[in-house]
Amino acid sequence: MPSVSPTLASAMTEAASAVAEALKCILPKSEFPENRLFEAMRYGTLNGGKRLRPFLVMCSSRIFGVGGECALRAAAAIECVHCYSLIHDDLPAMDNSDLRRGAPTVHKKFDEATAVLAGDALLTIAFEILSDPRTHEDPAVRCRLVSALARASGVQGMVGGQMLDLIAETTQLDIGAITRLQRMKTGELIAFSTEAGAILGKASVQHVNALRAYAHDLGLAFQIIDDLLDAEGTEEETGKPVGRDAEAGKATFVTILGAERARAQATLLSEQAIRHLSVFDGRARPLEEVARFVVDRKS
Amino acid sequence: MPSVSPTLASAMTEAASAVAEALKCILPKSEFPENRLFEAMRYGTLNGGKRLRPFLVMCSSRIFGVGGECALRAAAAIECVHCYSLIHDDLPAMDNSDLRRGAPTVHKKFDEATAVLAGDALLTIAFEILSDPRTHEDPAVRCRLVSALARASGVQGMVGGQMLDLIAETTQLDIGAITRLQRMKTGELIAFSTEAGAILGKASVQHVNALRAYAHDLGLAFQIIDDLLDAEGTEEETGKPVGRDAEAGKATFVTILGAERARAQATLLSEQAIRHLSVFDGRARPLEEVARFVVDRKS
Repeated sequence: MPSVSPTLASAMTEAASAVAEALKCILPKSEFPENRLFEAMRYGTLNGGKRLRPFLVMCSSRIFGVGGECALRAAAAIECVHCYSLIHDDLPAMDNSDLRRGAPTVHKKFDEATAVLAGDALLTIAFEILSDPRTHEDPAVRCRLVSALARASGVQGMVGGQMLDLIAETTQLDIGAITRLQRMKTGELIAFSTEAGAILGKASVQHVNALRAYAHDLGLAFQIIDDLLDAEGTEEETGKPVGRDAEAGKATFVTILGAERARAQATLLSEQAIRHLSVFDGRARPLEEVARFVVDRKS
Repeated sequence: MPSVSPTLASAMTEAASAVAEALKCILPKSEFPENRLFEAMRYGTLNGGKRLRPFLVMCSSRIFGVGGECALRAAAAIECVHCYSLIHDDLPAMDNSDLRRGAPTVHKKFDEATAVLAGDALLTIAFEILSDPRTHEDPAVRCRLVSALARASGVQGMVGGQMLDLIAETTQLDIGAITRLQRMKTGELIAFSTEAGAILGKASVQHVNALRAYAHDLGLAFQIIDDLLDAEGTEEETGKPVGRDAEAGKATFVTILGAERARAQATLLSEQAIRHLSVFDGRARPLEEVARFVVDRKS
């Protein structure tokens, strides 16, 4: 990550290792034949990745003084949901991708049925993690986490966005529709990741709203850069096939705005995201850095 | 349902309509293009079915005096999980079934990608329903429901059982392994359906344990009859392809025990299930009838 500040890079690496360790504990090996399912779940979650969402959970938790285990468990739950969505997204019936983070996708490494089930199981375990008293002693807080995750990843969020994404392959969307699609497909889960710390810390409405506004802009900036990487990056840099959107004739921020305006828009959104954090009087510094990182990243 | 008592038949029909109405409210039509997803979710849930699990929730809720909307919402959540599992189970990569309840399966009616997403969305919405204050005013109760549903439907329950079922296609299982497989694949969700009323009603441990024991025997009896219907029923009677287990050379209760001993075993389990209900002094009469119905059913 050449364009990232050394502090952010090391904080992200540290958070990524902590989440990987937590996931290893949550997804243990089994002596029973269904261990194949655990293997696929581990394979689909422990294959590197930036762990952006877990990092957001941990940064936002820290603002409100939330302890390590609570934040880590919420982070692990969100990462399970993110990874399940990648596993299902890669399936032959969906994006039909053979490669993810430079390695065979779950259905290539195992088989399609196992990939479907591993995704299902990861989604399910996310709710098991959040509803467990170890995530927070107050059941009202746990319930809010469950409810917010379900909304962010369901029909009005991620899955609805995936559906729109499929429709976008055969329908030309305008910039408004694409913005809505991306807000649902990736924005809502990023927003929940940022909000999770505030829920855990029983933060004020003002603080929750500031984090939501931040995450909204961040998510959109993130997606614009994703489109740019797909249009301009190499498979080597990104660890996944590129040029897929153009191949599919799909409208993206880049095809509609052009690369230059798209990048300018992402930069604008990133700056705007940072401004929303001013209410935290410098306690949200890592989140500011994330907003810079997201537009500078190369993968 | 010729061999069911008229009282049970009409109670089940009434409960099934109530759940269907609740599902229609929970899965509204949308004016946005992703309405296709809602359509697939409605198609996959509103296509009849016995609604056994919702009926169990409603019966067990009534024992503890739990009000209508709470029970109905919990019932709808469980039915969403059950229907999601059928949609994914029917996929070409899994059982590759074209027919379900006498109609085209979701991936046949829509397409494979939509079926994957509809299943994902139904699983997700189940947790949204349970964590909603309308399901129960006490967040501790909602959290227990979420946690129990996640465990019943995850790696240690339904999804783990599905994995074992796939493995059973290429490995000969003994009766112990098949019992474990079926307990996970269908038993745990049936057990949670029965337990849900006790959780909603904050029942005593003794009562929860009695319902668990009942549901455990009921679930196994249910599965043995399922195997019998697959071996001996017709597509017309069951509304789905039959003879699939034998075709796949899969070990089932019927292939191992033979039809006669399998039926005797199911009857024994049903009687045993009913005995567990004696602690309720007649307040669990409908659950007793369910145990009789399950072994007498023809579809």
